[in-house]
Amino acid sequence: MKQRLTIIKIGGALMESEETIVNLANVLGEIPGHKVVVHGGGRKASDLSEKLGIEIEMIEGRRITNKETLDVATMVYAGLYNKQLVSQFQKNNVRSLGMSGADLNIITSRKRPVRNVDYGFVGDIIKIDTSAMSELFNLNIVPVFCAITHDNNGQLLNTNADTIATMIAVKMADQYTVDLMYCMDKKGVLEDPDDDDSVISEIDYKRYKTLKMNGKIKLGLIPKMDNAFYALVNNVADVWICNIDGLVDYPAIKGTRICQ
Amino acid sequence: MKQRLTIIKIGGALMESEETIVNLANVLGEIPGHKVVVHGGGRKASDLSEKLGIEIEMIEGRRITNKETLDVATMVYAGLYNKQLVSQFQKNNVRSLGMSGADLNIITSRKRPVRNVDYGFVGDIIKIDTSAMSELFNLNIVPVFCAITHDNNGQLLNTNADTIATMIAVKMADQYTVDLMYCMDKKGVLEDPDDDDSVISEIDYKRYKTLKMNGKIKLGLIPKMDNAFYALVNNVADVWICNIDGLVDYPAIKGTRICQ
Repeated sequence: MKQRLTIIKIGGALMESEETIVNLANVLGEIPGHKVVVHGGGRKASDLSEKLGIEIEMIEGRRITNKETLDVATMVYAGLYNKQLVSQFQKNNVRSLGMSGADLNIITSRKRPVRNVDYGFVGDIIKIDTSAMSELFNLNIVPVFCAITHDNNGQLLNTNADTIATMIAVKMADQYTVDLMYCMDKKGVLEDPDDDDSVISEIDYKRYKTLKMNGKIKLGLIPKMDNAFYALVNNVADVWICNIDGLVDYPAIKGTRICQ
Repeated sequence: MKQRLTIIKIGGALMESEETIVNLANVLGEIPGHKVVVHGGGRKASDLSEKLGIEIEMIEGRRITNKETLDVATMVYAGLYNKQLVSQFQKNNVRSLGMSGADLNIITSRKRPVRNVDYGFVGDIIKIDTSAMSELFNLNIVPVFCAITHDNNGQLLNTNADTIATMIAVKMADQYTVDLMYCMDKKGVLEDPDDDDSVISEIDYKRYKTLKMNGKIKLGLIPKMDNAFYALVNNVADVWICNIDGLVDYPAIKGTRICQ
């Protein structure tokens, strides 16, 4: 029988709350099997860029990662957030190891090719070293990934945290029974965006298409949902969109279950 | 027979030169046995503090680490420098893993007790997890430490990089034959501070005391030399003060050998 692996992605906004981090540490203690945490960036990087007078370049509503923005992202994600998270986890007896994709060369990406837009130092994942990941699991280590990868040629790259979580889940699914939880501030996908309690308990692909067509899925959720379905069709066992509180009664999970 | 372990500490100023980092990566490839790298901070943290308008508090010539300064140090040391170094090492086939003391709870320190001066968030090392270190060595991993540790109670702490290198060397000396190299920009300890080629090839404790008495040892070198002798009396096999170029012909080393 395959061993279990649970991948928890936490959004950047959650990084601001110590209570949430402690809850997450407790949740990690409850969930059996191996665990991976992936964390987003949050406002801190934008705040720091602003303080440093770094202009945020946007093309077609998408942020461009120039050299200065990459340095700020590396400092905030791989430095401040990653180490604060790891230190809190240790306090709560989670044997965690903060990592970027460069560490152990565990996530290789390539700079996104320039077609119409040059997104700058943004990396699309091309390889996950699944053996290195298993070596860490065998030492009962919980890897904690920030949203920085590299090209294995000395260049760090900014990479979307949802995508990192998804790709790790997909690549590990051959060897492990993988559960993937995208945790955000809302309790799940909402029927009514203005009612935090209108969580849709289950969404399959047909319902997703309908919700999207009716404009019920908020724009920011679409890439997350696409990632979720991508994971499911690539053998990830169970996918949830929820918040940390939805995991505290594990194995009973509250939130939106995504199914094929 | 004990396995060899070589600990290389590189000063912050060296972090600014890509050539130096490539040389170091090549050196790491040449040295047999297990390896640890410890890197300092350099000017970047001070530059960033200045840009952010964070005042540098000094008491009796020593820098105070307040909350803002600690965050900047964590960002620059654990984020930017650590990940840039690791990415360059991977490019040169060194299987490196960037770490702070919080990762795997591998270096625990305690906030320096307030006597006459409150140094702020500065940590004095109280424990190194030597088993965790060996677990990494057994996977042929080269841990790359930045100058951030933690108190195992959720608080990150700023810790001198020379001291981290020294304490790792001392604690690992029971199990490994440890060589410790403090690499800086100068070629070694200089007879004449104005002549970069006046490297003293060997200094024992008696000579050190004489040099110190005659004002021949520059102020900044004294804690490094004290660390060096502390390592030697605590069973570290071989201790050098040199630069990276002094290691490129390893096992022939150029620089200042410290002996008892």
